[in-house]
Amino acid sequence: MSLSKFDGLELPASADFHVHLRDGAMMKTVVPTIKKGGVNTVYVMPNLVPPLTSSSNVLAYKARLQAIDPDINYLMTLYLHETITPAVIKGARAQGIVGVKSYPAGVTTNSSSGVISYEPFYPVFAAMEQCGMVLNLHGECPSDHSRNITILNAENLFLPTLKTLHENFPKLKIVLEHCTTKEAVEAVKACGDNVVGTITAHHLFLTVDDWADDPFSFCKPVAKWPSDREALLRAALSGSPKFFLGSDSAPHPVSSKKGGLGKTAAGVFTQANVTAYVLDAFELAIERKLIKEEDVTKETLEGFLGGFGRKFYDVQDGNGRKIVLRKGSEKIVEMVKGEEGIEVVPFRRGMGTWSVEWK
Amino acid sequence: MSLSKFDGLELPASADFHVHLRDGAMMKTVVPTIKKGGVNTVYVMPNLVPPLTSSSNVLAYKARLQAIDPDINYLMTLYLHETITPAVIKGARAQGIVGVKSYPAGVTTNSSSGVISYEPFYPVFAAMEQCGMVLNLHGECPSDHSRNITILNAENLFLPTLKTLHENFPKLKIVLEHCTTKEAVEAVKACGDNVVGTITAHHLFLTVDDWADDPFSFCKPVAKWPSDREALLRAALSGSPKFFLGSDSAPHPVSSKKGGLGKTAAGVFTQANVTAYVLDAFELAIERKLIKEEDVTKETLEGFLGGFGRKFYDVQDGNGRKIVLRKGSEKIVEMVKGEEGIEVVPFRRGMGTWSVEWK
Repeated sequence: MSLSKFDGLELPASADFHVHLRDGAMMKTVVPTIKKGGVNTVYVMPNLVPPLTSSSNVLAYKARLQAIDPDINYLMTLYLHETITPAVIKGARAQGIVGVKSYPAGVTTNSSSGVISYEPFYPVFAAMEQCGMVLNLHGECPSDHSRNITILNAENLFLPTLKTLHENFPKLKIVLEHCTTKEAVEAVKACGDNVVGTITAHHLFLTVDDWADDPFSFCKPVAKWPSDREALLRAALSGSPKFFLGSDSAPHPVSSKKGGLGKTAAGVFTQANVTAYVLDAFELAIERKLIKEEDVTKETLEGFLGGFGRKFYDVQDGNGRKIVLRKGSEKIVEMVKGEEGIEVVPFRRGMGTWSVEWK
Repeated sequence: MSLSKFDGLELPASADFHVHLRDGAMMKTVVPTIKKGGVNTVYVMPNLVPPLTSSSNVLAYKARLQAIDPDINYLMTLYLHETITPAVIKGARAQGIVGVKSYPAGVTTNSSSGVISYEPFYPVFAAMEQCGMVLNLHGECPSDHSRNITILNAENLFLPTLKTLHENFPKLKIVLEHCTTKEAVEAVKACGDNVVGTITAHHLFLTVDDWADDPFSFCKPVAKWPSDREALLRAALSGSPKFFLGSDSAPHPVSSKKGGLGKTAAGVFTQANVTAYVLDAFELAIERKLIKEEDVTKETLEGFLGGFGRKFYDVQDGNGRKIVLRKGSEKIVEMVKGEEGIEVVPFRRGMGTWSVEWK
C-alpha cells in the first residue's frame, strides 16, 4: 500500500481530456462509466463513423450524450477534414465547440479520413488561433517502410511537425495527445505555454512487452520503452501544467479484440476506473522504484487529474462535487456489459484498484 | 509475376532446419504438412511440455513422428537443461541426436525451463564441441525493464553472448536461430565458419507494423524494422553458406491465438507452404524494390532452401526427389484442419502463392 497516505483523500472530480464515447449502443454502455471513474468533465473525440465534420453533427452528438447523463460537462470537437474552413471554425466556436482533432491518415481507429499534410489547413489554424479554438493532435506519422517509419518511431518523427505548427501559430493552443515517448515530453516542454500534452492512464503502466501478446493492452500510439514509461510518469508528477490526463479510453466490443480471425482493434478501455488507474500506476511505479512515494503529492494529483487541464481549456469545475479515494477491496470488473449484448474488457480486468466514490 | 523465370523450376527437396511439430493431435495435424511444403528434412525442436531432456524421450518422440510420415528425415535435438551433462551428450550423439537447443528462460513458448546463464554449461559445450553436436540458440535476453531490455532489443543484447560462446568454443557448431535483425546478421558474419544463422520465411515479410494487430503474424523473436527485414532478405540471397532456412513454423490452435481473453500464443505457422513462402517473399521484395529480380538465382535459392543447411549439418538429401515450383492459382488455405477438431491458421491465409509439387 505504497500510497496509503491517500486513503480517504478528497479531490475535486477528475476531468478527462481525451475520451472516446462512440455512438448507439456502445455510447449507452460507456457514458455511464464516466461518473463511475470519478470524472465530471470529458473532452470528446470526434472520430465516429462517419467522423464529425460539421457543427450540427457535433451538437446533435452532444445532445445524444447529454440524454444519457446530463450531469457531465461534454467538451466537443470537430474532426479536421478538407471540408473544414475558417467560416466553419467561426461558426463552431460560436456554438461552443472547443477544439478540432487532427488524425494523420490511417494511423488509428476511424482515421482513414484524416490529414496527410498541414499546409492546406493553415487558414483554418489561423482562424482557430484568432477565435481561441484548440488544436488536438494525434501526433504520429503514417508508417512508411521505404523510410523505415513504423509504429515504433511514428511519434518521434511527428515532433518536428509539432514544432513547425507552434512556430507558425504561436498563439494557437495545441495539445499533443497521448504522449508515449520521452522525446514527446521534451518536445512539449520545449514549446511555449500554448503547447501541452495529455498522458493516458494506461501508458503510465505499459511497455511494448505488455501489448505484444495482449490485445486488451494494445492501442495507438503503441506503448514503447521502459525509459519512455518513466518519462511519462515523471511528466505526470512534475507539477508542470503542461501535462495532464487524457485517458484516450477507447472502448471496443470484445469481438473486435478477439473475435474471428481479423485484425485487433486498437484501443484500451479505462473510462470506468480512470482516476483509480492513475493512483495504481503511481503505486506500481513506487514499488518498482521508478519514483518515490514523496514524489506523489495531493497538489500534483489534483493538477494532473483535472486542475491543469481545466486551466488550459479555461473550464470551470461545474458542480464542485468531490470524489473520495479509498484503498480497500475494490476490483476492476472482468467485463463491462452494456446495451444489446455489448461486452467491453476493461484494462487490468479483475485486478485490485482504488475505490473512487462521490461525496 | 516478378519471378516468372522460375515457373516450372525443379529444385532439390527443401530442408527446414527449425520446426515445431508438437505432440499428440497437433503433431498428427502438422507432420503431414511437411511434405506438402516441399520439405523432406526437418530439424525438430525439443520444446514439448515437458521438454525433451533425455535421449530416450527424444528417440521415442522421433518414433512417433516416423509413425506418421516415415519418408521425412527427422533430425532430433535435446533441450538444454541442468540435467544435461557431458555423459548425456556422449550418449545422445551415439544415438544419432544432432543438436542441443537452448532457450533463455521465459522468452517464448514452453521455455520456462530454459537457461539463464551459460557458464554452468561449459562442460556440456566442451563435450558437444568434441563429439560434433550442434548448439542451437534462441538468441534473446529475457526482458528486464530495469535495464530497458524489451522484446525489441532482446536479440541485439544477446549478441555479445554469441561472440563469447564462439570465442570459448571455436570448434563448436553454433546456430543463431531465427535471426531477426541486421545486427544479428552482422554478428553471425563476424564469427568463424562454425557459426551460422537460420532465417524464417515469415521474417522475410514482416515488420512490427504487421504483427501489432495480427495475432497470426506474432511470434518471438518479434519482427522489427523494415531495415532489419531488408538485411534478412539480403542475407538469404547473399549466397553465403552461413544463412539458410529454419522456418520456426510454430503451430497453435486458433483458440490459443484468438480464444478467450488470455494472452496470444507466440508463433507463426508456415509448414504447409514453407518453400512457396520464400518465393513469395522474394517476389514481394522485388515489387517493393528492396531487391532486384537478378539477385534471386537458382543457386542462391537452392542454397538457402536446403543446400547450405545440409552442408553445415553434414546430412545427405536422402531420397533425392525433386520439387517443381509453379506460379498459378494456388492459394494458401484459410485454415489447416486436423485431428480432434484442431484448427491452425496459416501465415498469409487465403493469399496467392506458388504451387510446390513433388516430381
